[in-house]
Amino acid sequence: MAEAVAVDHLAGERSKAQFDVDAMKIVWAGSKHAFDIADRMARLVASDPVFRKDNRTMLERKELFKTTLRKAAHAWKRISQLHLTEEEAMMFRFFVDEPAYVDLHWGMFVPAIRGQGTEEQQKKWLPMAYKMQIIGCYAQTELGHGSNVQGLETTATFDPKSDEFIIHSPTLTSSKWWPGGLGKVSTHAVVYARLITDGQDHGINGFIVQLRSLDDHSPLPGVTIGDIGTKFGNGAYNTMDNGVLRFDHVRIPRNQMLMRVSQVTREGKFIQSDVPRQLLYGTMVFVRQTIVSDASKALSRAVCIAVRYSAVRRQFGSQDGGPETQVIDYKTQQDRLFPLLASAYAFRFVGEWLKWLYTDVTQRLQANDFSTLPEAHACTAGLKSLTTSTTADGIEECRKLCGGHGYLCSSGLPELFAVYVPACTYEGDNIVLLLQVARFLMKTVSRLGSGKQPVGTTAYMVKAPELMQCKCEVQEAKDWLKPTVILQAFEARSVRMAVNCAQNISKAQNPEEGFYELSADLVEAAVAHCQLIIVSKFIEKVEQEIHGHGVKEMLQILCNVYALSLIHKHLGDFISTGSITPKQGALANEQLRSLYSQVRPNAVAMVDAFNYTDHYLGSALGRYDGNVYPKLYEEAWKDPLNDSVVPDGYHEYIKPLLKQNFGVARL
Amino acid sequence: MAEAVAVDHLAGERSKAQFDVDAMKIVWAGSKHAFDIADRMARLVASDPVFRKDNRTMLERKELFKTTLRKAAHAWKRISQLHLTEEEAMMFRFFVDEPAYVDLHWGMFVPAIRGQGTEEQQKKWLPMAYKMQIIGCYAQTELGHGSNVQGLETTATFDPKSDEFIIHSPTLTSSKWWPGGLGKVSTHAVVYARLITDGQDHGINGFIVQLRSLDDHSPLPGVTIGDIGTKFGNGAYNTMDNGVLRFDHVRIPRNQMLMRVSQVTREGKFIQSDVPRQLLYGTMVFVRQTIVSDASKALSRAVCIAVRYSAVRRQFGSQDGGPETQVIDYKTQQDRLFPLLASAYAFRFVGEWLKWLYTDVTQRLQANDFSTLPEAHACTAGLKSLTTSTTADGIEECRKLCGGHGYLCSSGLPELFAVYVPACTYEGDNIVLLLQVARFLMKTVSRLGSGKQPVGTTAYMVKAPELMQCKCEVQEAKDWLKPTVILQAFEARSVRMAVNCAQNISKAQNPEEGFYELSADLVEAAVAHCQLIIVSKFIEKVEQEIHGHGVKEMLQILCNVYALSLIHKHLGDFISTGSITPKQGALANEQLRSLYSQVRPNAVAMVDAFNYTDHYLGSALGRYDGNVYPKLYEEAWKDPLNDSVVPDGYHEYIKPLLKQNFGVARL
Ligand SMILES: Cc1cc2nc3c(=O)[nH]c(=O)nc-3n(C[C@H](O)[C@H](O)[C@H](O)COP(=O)(O)OP(=O)(O)OC[C@H]3O[C@@H](n4cnc5c(N)ncnc54)[C@H](O)[C@@H]3O)c2cc1C
Ligand SMILES: Cc1cc2nc3c(=O)[nH]c(=O)nc-3n(C[C@H](O)[C@H](O)[C@H](O)COP(=O)(O)OP(=O)(O)OC[C@H]3O[C@@H](n4cnc5c(N)ncnc54)[C@H](O)[C@@H]3O)c2cc1C
Ligand SMILES: [Ca+2]
Repeated sequence: MAEAVAVDHLAGERSKAQFDVDAMKIVWAGSKHAFDIADRMARLVASDPVFRKDNRTMLERKELFKTTLRKAAHAWKRISQLHLTEEEAMMFRFFVDEPAYVDLHWGMFVPAIRGQGTEEQQKKWLPMAYKMQIIGCYAQTELGHGSNVQGLETTATFDPKSDEFIIHSPTLTSSKWWPGGLGKVSTHAVVYARLITDGQDHGINGFIVQLRSLDDHSPLPGVTIGDIGTKFGNGAYNTMDNGVLRFDHVRIPRNQMLMRVSQVTREGKFIQSDVPRQLLYGTMVFVRQTIVSDASKALSRAVCIAVRYSAVRRQFGSQDGGPETQVIDYKTQQDRLFPLLASAYAFRFVGEWLKWLYTDVTQRLQANDFSTLPEAHACTAGLKSLTTSTTADGIEECRKLCGGHGYLCSSGLPELFAVYVPACTYEGDNIVLLLQVARFLMKTVSRLGSGKQPVGTTAYMVKAPELMQCKCEVQEAKDWLKPTVILQAFEARSVRMAVNCAQNISKAQNPEEGFYELSADLVEAAVAHCQLIIVSKFIEKVEQEIHGHGVKEMLQILCNVYALSLIHKHLGDFISTGSITPKQGALANEQLRSLYSQVRPNAVAMVDAFNYTDHYLGSALGRYDGNVYPKLYEEAWKDPLNDSVVPDGYHEYIKPLLKQNFGVARL
Repeated sequence: MAEAVAVDHLAGERSKAQFDVDAMKIVWAGSKHAFDIADRMARLVASDPVFRKDNRTMLERKELFKTTLRKAAHAWKRISQLHLTEEEAMMFRFFVDEPAYVDLHWGMFVPAIRGQGTEEQQKKWLPMAYKMQIIGCYAQTELGHGSNVQGLETTATFDPKSDEFIIHSPTLTSSKWWPGGLGKVSTHAVVYARLITDGQDHGINGFIVQLRSLDDHSPLPGVTIGDIGTKFGNGAYNTMDNGVLRFDHVRIPRNQMLMRVSQVTREGKFIQSDVPRQLLYGTMVFVRQTIVSDASKALSRAVCIAVRYSAVRRQFGSQDGGPETQVIDYKTQQDRLFPLLASAYAFRFVGEWLKWLYTDVTQRLQANDFSTLPEAHACTAGLKSLTTSTTADGIEECRKLCGGHGYLCSSGLPELFAVYVPACTYEGDNIVLLLQVARFLMKTVSRLGSGKQPVGTTAYMVKAPELMQCKCEVQEAKDWLKPTVILQAFEARSVRMAVNCAQNISKAQNPEEGFYELSADLVEAAVAHCQLIIVSKFIEKVEQEIHGHGVKEMLQILCNVYALSLIHKHLGDFISTGSITPKQGALANEQLRSLYSQVRPNAVAMVDAFNYTDHYLGSALGRYDGNVYPKLYEEAWKDPLNDSVVPDGYHEYIKPLLKQNFGVARL
């Protein structure tokens, strides 16, 4: 976003760009329409003093939390005052850029009722939720169980006498633990608990439970709630009241069990409805699609800061008293930074594709076609895992790329990292997810040749016989620019790793044992498969019609950077499977180096294309105008420690030391 | 450290150990003597309520800083009351485990005067510093220059009229920025500035400058000082007052320039003394040796937490209602965790060896033998870089290994990460250091065959002709257990990567250009060389006499895990250089898997051997007794947000929302 700037220290960089930045902005946003909304909402938020973030990392927890409550309420007010559409409201909240209970209310509580509630239940609860007359959270995880949902211990025992469920926390480890918005705000929760009727355990089901009084916000009888304490980083996710919750025989009416998929009758009989359980997959695909899309946003944000600062920062290499070298000109800096820039774009496009996939899945579900669901499920699980892991590591790498100054909160990077990393854990631990992908791959491999065709992102496996044999045809560096060559190398690597695993598993006593023993290798095979998906979606994107001078060419370059940097990083996979030769690996690296030189003059413009405001970036180092040093300097003085020249504690703990009379002072 | 525990939830794990844990503790500590001191100091600190850390991540900056001042003063008092030896005092401070101005005073200010001051200067300043009558910091880095020390802008202009230097900050970017202890505490600093006499610039020199009044702590005239603001993480490095400092023509007497290596005479003549500049390398080797030793401590601490929690945590795999699988039994968990356990030990031993190297270097310096200095310098630079990078990444991996709960500050891991990561940046940015190693390697390669023998850790390069040709002899997995096989593979890989780089450089227009173009590859060659050093020192360690039942055997296993996990991780290097074949790579992986099974029963005992107190670990997840859940639960309630049931802000920002009357409230 072109800010009103006095002097643009990056003007020189911007003038070097070889493509139409405004056109690239549209591509990044997805459409002109999406761009306009994002641009407008970002400005609205940035210009509103209530949404200031610059002091966030300095506030102690209570103060921080209160400002979050204020922002959430103010956002709600503005959204209705301005009559924003749902799409606009989402963008508005996004640019407020502060985790809060509303995320769970809109992102988990409402969808859970929509997805798992009967029509009657939806009619009763949703209007209240839409108006925020009730605020809800999603209470699944317990102290003792996260990944293994089937192991949850909270019980919901049907009492036929009163037609009620008794919600109870039988053990310490059954305490609900982690739900966002639970600790201090939510009035209601969807609580997952073991359904017990007539002494029989029917497994985990969801229940709508009121937690707090709508009059004075005090917890209802039998309900103990609190916040689970400080989390990683300053500011960051500490704006969220992740909570602990214990039930002491709390009674709720029978009709508060979410009954779309299973029901309990007045008599206490447990019935499965004929609504297929796969329906729940739809929601999962949706949630994960948003996580992938968030990954591209978080990574692009970090990359934007690191690219701009690397163009401002100069160190070494001054000749005859001239300016020193911009650190972005160092090849090591490029080698760490440009693949991340390429990844941000790659994740953006695979996220866009996932949106399409979600629509596709939804339509098929409506048509009772469940055939593509397992593949869609595995694919989204893998992409969630891969994009969030890369993004978390990438943000920290961007921080390191900024040298010492990246360690200051005023760089924005520490908070971005701290607030981002749990994405590797929530909505499925990334390793657990990759193991699910691997399981699906093994199934797919075992069925090859059985007549059952692999679908969707596994369709390439039909070519397994060729891919097991094929030889990469690269003879000189520039051969690596051919999409077909890249695709074949990634497909060959992926198939061969999967087939290798399958063969090794088959040597074990039994498949379960084999899968367990080889799980580390299986995770690598799953990664290979998911990287192929991202590469192929990037290639597809670049093959589409793309407007704007030089835009397609730049994306082509980034696509190649993405693919070739992965080949370099996973060279062992590619060579040991025989998908490429060592010589071809060296050529890929050579080509990569020359691509870096093509990215270099366009780097700043490529991050400008994200169209992020300085408010959203929240970084002294990433400022649009590159005027880094005065801003860093200014930010420093805001620290509470600078309230006084002589620090609190001087008289008790410094002076006695200097005066050698610490015997008398109360040290 | 065996705590007094009611129930030991990890007793079962401990009984599985196949080696003598007490003997391993001695090996880890370095000697019985070192063990005794560490054990005693750790207990002393742990039992003193002043040193509590459990609330550290909840304190706002000023409060936090005040508690640090208190701890530092209290430590100083206890150290003198107890008449601790220097060795004991160091350990005592180490277990206080909180970055503070004293670290810079003892670790940088005093050594700078010792190393760069004349005898007279040492006599004047050191006694005051030893008694802490003055407190000093190390003011080198500026807003505009960190890595490139030669680019510093602060000036020290000699004024022959008054026989003084005028210290001045001519630009904003010349502001000193980052020095620890500067912001709020130091009374003095060693300031690095461009020496100017008679209009001539003599480059960077050190000066002792008083900053604050010894009476009332106010900054002296012409001195502007402040704290540079919040840094990454809660608690963490925010206990340190990293500072900003500007000089407005501040005058200091001529004899406050550190004059051991260069002098300015009364007349303003600049003279280089005959003391060789290489002397300064000695200090660098010392400082980096301590950083490597700290890396092993930080990594072992994270690994200790993750191993214990992984043995407590159970998820999935319950059969017939029995207990679920301990997550440490999952192969993916082992594959992420055990190489880090092995690395902690590897870094411990290479750190021990560096201590020897420092002694060796010091003795040679005294004998005017500078021949090994460049090699020692490159070697320590590389090991600093490699161990700190691996440790930073390793801590975060340990956090992820703890699932959701690792994200809570009460797990101890977020703070450990945040406080550790700057080690990748200070004392030399890790990439800049690796480039120095690479430069040394290229020099070494270019001299091969010139008769000038490579020394120290590069001595293996004499064998370059064989190593370029040799074939790895592994035929079955267990061949990978032979130290000679492992060493040869690492040596071959390292030599071949270095020689490849040298050859590619020679194709460039000129060597400088070539070095620049290939710098990303050069960094990889430097990493390969440094990994070889660590592997070889681990092997040497295991070949020494080691007492205690099973201790040597366990270390042998870890040594192999370390080496083979590196082969797997860098398979591309090993195979593409032809150092091993793909088949041999697969065998290495197979062997690695079976080593994991041998580590498994010993894992908890291997981290017990670090002998860390629960106080030092500071982790609800890493507790010695494994009683994780009650502790997590208890910690949660300490959060300030839990001071009241209904949160501050409810009436202003939640109630109006629920009641739909946010029009009237001041949102
Ligand atoms: C910031 C944040 C917000 C959250 N918000 C919510 C919320 O709103 N509502 C809610 O209900 N929950 C929430 N959660 C909880 C979250 O969903 C869980 O933490 C997550 O599912 C991971 O489960 P876990 O913590 O039990 O990890 P664990 O399963 O205990 O993982 C520990 C380790 O074991 C490994 N592991 C586990 N199972 C296997 C296996 N089968 N094979 C191999 N390895 C395995 C993992 O890879 C990991 O390394 C939140 C968590 C966080 C951090
Ligand atoms: C917690 C902390 C404590 C500190 N304490 C002190 C202290 O007490 N006293 C003190 O004087 N200083 C201190 N420092 C400053 C520290 O020494 C510097 O931050 C460090 O030297 C790195 O320099 P920089 O910040 O200028 O990084 P930069 O050099 O600006 O690094 C930015 C990027 O440029 C790259 N780069 C730079 N040069 C090259 C090159 N030639 N080739 C390739 N890439 C290059 C780097 O790899 C990095 O990615 C501290 C810093 C921190 C974070
Ligand atoms: Ca804080």
